[in-house]
Amino acid sequence: MVKRVPPGDTLARWVCDQCGEIHYQNPRMVVGTVPEHEGRILLCRRAIEPRYGYWTLPAGFLENDETVAQGAYRETLEEAGAQVELGEPFSMISVPYVHQVHFFYRARLLALDFKPGEETIEVALFEEARIPWKDIAFRTVGRTLKLWFADRARQTFAFHAEDLPPA
Amino acid sequence: MVKRVPPGDTLARWVCDQCGEIHYQNPRMVVGTVPEHEGRILLCRRAIEPRYGYWTLPAGFLENDETVAQGAYRETLEEAGAQVELGEPFSMISVPYVHQVHFFYRARLLALDFKPGEETIEVALFEEARIPWKDIAFRTVGRTLKLWFADRARQTFAFHAEDLPPA
Repeated sequence: MVKRVPPGDTLARWVCDQCGEIHYQNPRMVVGTVPEHEGRILLCRRAIEPRYGYWTLPAGFLENDETVAQGAYRETLEEAGAQVELGEPFSMISVPYVHQVHFFYRARLLALDFKPGEETIEVALFEEARIPWKDIAFRTVGRTLKLWFADRARQTFAFHAEDLPPA
Repeated sequence: MVKRVPPGDTLARWVCDQCGEIHYQNPRMVVGTVPEHEGRILLCRRAIEPRYGYWTLPAGFLENDETVAQGAYRETLEEAGAQVELGEPFSMISVPYVHQVHFFYRARLLALDFKPGEETIEVALFEEARIPWKDIAFRTVGRTLKLWFADRARQTFAFHAEDLPPA
């Protein structure tokens, strides 16, 4: 593989020097939910790297053949064993320096029988005062939680599109 | 390259049978704008396949190292030569059967000196009654235009998240 600008393009791409196939690389979507039960938010403690042992909202890479909503639902079920009713889109945060776009839906827990999936150590519900702010795995998750509690305090939930600058 | 389920994964991935590297494939984001000037919408007639000769909103694949907003702005400049002020996020339409997510911002044209870019035959402003509905290139573009005019009629613009079923 060599990196060069294909004819008609403006950016360098990875091109196979044997077959000439162009391997485009584009940002990936990480999709998840903010699952709520009676004012408390469900968080997962990560059993995998990166950020092993830190807390996160259930989320993961959107897969081919699924919609953003389906991906968010699937990740919530896989990571937290939690069945939710999806609500409105809540936050979209671009993270260009890692080539990602993070997208969260609001969601309502349908039952309290959640349990950690393979990539999760434990799952728990947190009221605002008990959110482990210092142990949140990713800045997009911390930001989404801040936006959620601020919207709740205002009693109006909006859709928030933001960008995350490099740390 | 062979397709198989890597250890710890649940889906089959393309794996290089020589070096073992896993080549993940995930949906790509197509980002663009609904550029408006005094109630008229700017459309581009495509000079490339697919859908050569059909009309579209300015949009294209989000690139690494840019935010969704930056990508939408860049595509509008590249395809229509149009400088815009980005407004609020307007529509996100999942198109799982082609592994894409389309995302449009509202935008206000800052000048009328737009001109077709390399991938565009012509650029023009259309009032609602003159939108070439039968010659719109993509269903996500037609749907976004319908949503835009419906919201304008209501005098309230919202963010719309939808899925596009197979044709």
